[in-house]
Amino acid sequence: MNLYRDKISLKTTSRLQIIDITSRISQIIKKSGFKNGFSILHVPHTTATIAVNEGDPDLWEDILEVLTRLVPTDAKYRHNLKYGGTPSEQNAHAHILNCLLNPSITIPFIDGRLVLGTWQSILFIELDGPRVRKVDIMVYGV
Amino acid sequence: MNLYRDKISLKTTSRLQIIDITSRISQIIKKSGFKNGFSILHVPHTTATIAVNEGDPDLWEDILEVLTRLVPTDAKYRHNLKYGGTPSEQNAHAHILNCLLNPSITIPFIDGRLVLGTWQSILFIELDGPRVRKVDIMVYGV
Amino acid sequence: MNLYRDKISLKTTSRLQIIDITSRISQIIKKSGFKNGFSILHVPHTTATIAVNEGDPDLWEDILEVLTRLVPTDAKYRHNLKYGGTPSEQNAHAHILNCLLNPSITIPFIDGRLVLGTWQSILFIELDGPRVRKVDIMVYGV
Repeated sequence: MNLYRDKISLKTTSRLQIIDITSRISQIIKKSGFKNGFSILHVPHTTATIAVNEGDPDLWEDILEVLTRLVPTDAKYRHNLKYGGTPSEQNAHAHILNCLLNPSITIPFIDGRLVLGTWQSILFIELDGPRVRKVDIMVYGV
Repeated sequence: MNLYRDKISLKTTSRLQIIDITSRISQIIKKSGFKNGFSILHVPHTTATIAVNEGDPDLWEDILEVLTRLVPTDAKYRHNLKYGGTPSEQNAHAHILNCLLNPSITIPFIDGRLVLGTWQSILFIELDGPRVRKVDIMVYGV
Repeated sequence: MNLYRDKISLKTTSRLQIIDITSRISQIIKKSGFKNGFSILHVPHTTATIAVNEGDPDLWEDILEVLTRLVPTDAKYRHNLKYGGTPSEQNAHAHILNCLLNPSITIPFIDGRLVLGTWQSILFIELDGPRVRKVDIMVYGV
């Protein structure tokens, strides 16, 4: 089993935002040259994350609305108070949602194709943008 | 490290439902013939998911009740409005919970036995049933 | 690809508590002797879990406060009623949060170093302490 390492960069444009990265991940699997294996997608950030769900922008707004209702951006958080002078650190909501959503997922591939269901897309979830982000991709395969 | 691929099928009978699939996963590990390795369990659906917790049906009702309280089935969602004519697409709650719960988990096995704690069972979680469902199982091992 | 298996033990001191275990995991990667691979961190408990986020104790209090707000420790749960006589089983909240947070994570390493972002620490999350806990660590690598 061999390793191919790559990454993708993203520029998000909103505070909370979902971006479909499925085709970029598929291209990296192709670039690896492996036929069978699995890929660990790791978001190296504490205020952005990753999920697998439908590629429907209306649904994405529903998802972000519920996340914001469950963990409001503007509640009183110790983390935000401590960094009261730093606008870029008013983001405890994003850290908490990152814990709930998990910044890492492992996806198998067979014959060079990701094992995803018909309606499954790989979604990058910005929780404290706009920022420049990346996803580390480790492809293990043969 | 070799690959053995299998899947299980399930027929769920309720809107939200938890089904213990531990013994079926254990059997697939046995069928693989591998002694040591790990298994990626991937639910290829966007409105059903998987978790690891106790095999207690009373607890399962608690879990589903809390999930439904946090993300109600009958709230107003853009996704549901868009598909207003399609009863089978009134399921934004299920998509959102799928993001929170994650449809994939990686579980190691040693000497042919899943590395699970005494009280851990593998639970399939239906969020928009009744439907016919499956779980893709990729076993990597030697 | 070879396997090195290890575990860490923890003694938690509060009902809900977060403990940074990054350095202990890093040491185990070193002990494995592997340069490249990945590690499956599996919490074999149904009322404790694991996450990857910032090593900030103030933030940890925010996280635990939100978790307790979303899934209160003292709500009425069937699981708790059933075990009404057993104080150690008044923990349905912890089971439910374990499902939401997931008790397992896979983290790659390159040149013997965990692939983590600058602000990412590996956090053990006690949800029903104080208890003696462990984390199973399976390191696959070359």
